[in-house]
Amino acid sequence: MHFTSERRLEDGVLEREFTLGEIPGTLWTPGSPESVAPVAPVPLVLMAHNNGLPKADPRLVARARYTAARGYAVAGIDAAGCGDRPRTAAAEQARADLRRAIGAGEPVDEIFESLIGPMVENAVPDWRTTLDALLELPGIGGPVGYSGGWTALGVRLAVVEPRIVAAGFFAGGYVPRAQREEARQVTIPLLFLLQWDDEGNPRQRALDLFDAFGSEEKTLHANLGGHTGTPWFELEDGGRFLDRHLKPVRRAV
Amino acid sequence: MHFTSERRLEDGVLEREFTLGEIPGTLWTPGSPESVAPVAPVPLVLMAHNNGLPKADPRLVARARYTAARGYAVAGIDAAGCGDRPRTAAAEQARADLRRAIGAGEPVDEIFESLIGPMVENAVPDWRTTLDALLELPGIGGPVGYSGGWTALGVRLAVVEPRIVAAGFFAGGYVPRAQREEARQVTIPLLFLLQWDDEGNPRQRALDLFDAFGSEEKTLHANLGGHTGTPWFELEDGGRFLDRHLKPVRRAV
Repeated sequence: MHFTSERRLEDGVLEREFTLGEIPGTLWTPGSPESVAPVAPVPLVLMAHNNGLPKADPRLVARARYTAARGYAVAGIDAAGCGDRPRTAAAEQARADLRRAIGAGEPVDEIFESLIGPMVENAVPDWRTTLDALLELPGIGGPVGYSGGWTALGVRLAVVEPRIVAAGFFAGGYVPRAQREEARQVTIPLLFLLQWDDEGNPRQRALDLFDAFGSEEKTLHANLGGHTGTPWFELEDGGRFLDRHLKPVRRAV
Repeated sequence: MHFTSERRLEDGVLEREFTLGEIPGTLWTPGSPESVAPVAPVPLVLMAHNNGLPKADPRLVARARYTAARGYAVAGIDAAGCGDRPRTAAAEQARADLRRAIGAGEPVDEIFESLIGPMVENAVPDWRTTLDALLELPGIGGPVGYSGGWTALGVRLAVVEPRIVAAGFFAGGYVPRAQREEARQVTIPLLFLLQWDDEGNPRQRALDLFDAFGSEEKTLHANLGGHTGTPWFELEDGGRFLDRHLKPVRRAV
């Protein structure tokens, strides 16, 4: 892992760009104040944006900075086929098909299957490689959480990656049938965030997915409004969810 | 309003029993620490338990004490037909019918209509009378919130009582058709709490009710588990919801 740039943000968070082989990533870590006392390792949060949007997406960056300031190392990457990285010819074709189908008002589920399904499969190895490398850095310890708009990737990672102990998912985004099936194998605590009137994402499908998760501890937060209308307080709620599961000392009730 | 007893609890909360005409009630107010500075009036929260259970129910008392310690005046009453107060012959008959129908595995909706419908109608005037009296007490100011297991009463009060500016409802309890209809007239911010596998309360009916509320700001929190399995952190979430809407100074994001 090579850090290629770093800057200290006004909230004290250190933002570092890195490359790991072909994988470009960003790591946000909480500011070390002027204290010279040794800083205990902080838990790690993997943050992936919806269906492979770039790690530089402003909404993801805002969530990452907030979470880092709360006391976490937060990492985002552009995995294979995501963000600005090269796309397969099949993915390019699927995107073209998608634009055409949406324009024509035709069904899009099968096109999403052919686009998102392989994208999830391709992204998983890059995320696991990144996780390996991050956990070798000083100052970053387990446990690991996932907090992402990209639910399909999160489901896949939660199934194959035992180091992830809690996950926050956003319901707005296509989840391939394969991940809807394996949702039953997810058993870690979950916070599932739903926009009640998300234009492109059927509500009942999201409720069915919430129902399907195998976790004994799972919470749904649904708010009125469309895809991008998540209220600000859900950012704090998400932070508290991570605190409950990733921070060693829990507050008394 | 006559206070008949008072005791200071270990969390500093002052718990006072009162009577207001025929209405027995309890008022919990936050502790005044040793400071002699004048204490600003605190917001008021009306707390009613599911379908008229007594105000002394341990779960209601625990919620009331927690909320008072957070900086609220909290009041619970046994309204007409509720708790230990006299029941009408019709209500007694309905309860007997209910026991028989449940034992025989027969439908219970119509029996609930005949029991809960009048109970809501009868309880509303007592709650409004109590609200009038409470707001005349020193140290209690507006705004007013409703936080109750009893959703049907809360819907009715939210429609007829403009002094109530925010409400937390619990989905576990029969809501008569009249209140399901008038849910569309509720426009204050809501937090709606649902137990995903509540034995006696159909999930879809609860989701339909959430959908029906006319409020522009409404949030659903659903957790895995049965009727009494609400996780402890929802108590804090409910407190933060009240803080956002009832306390004058809001924190910066």
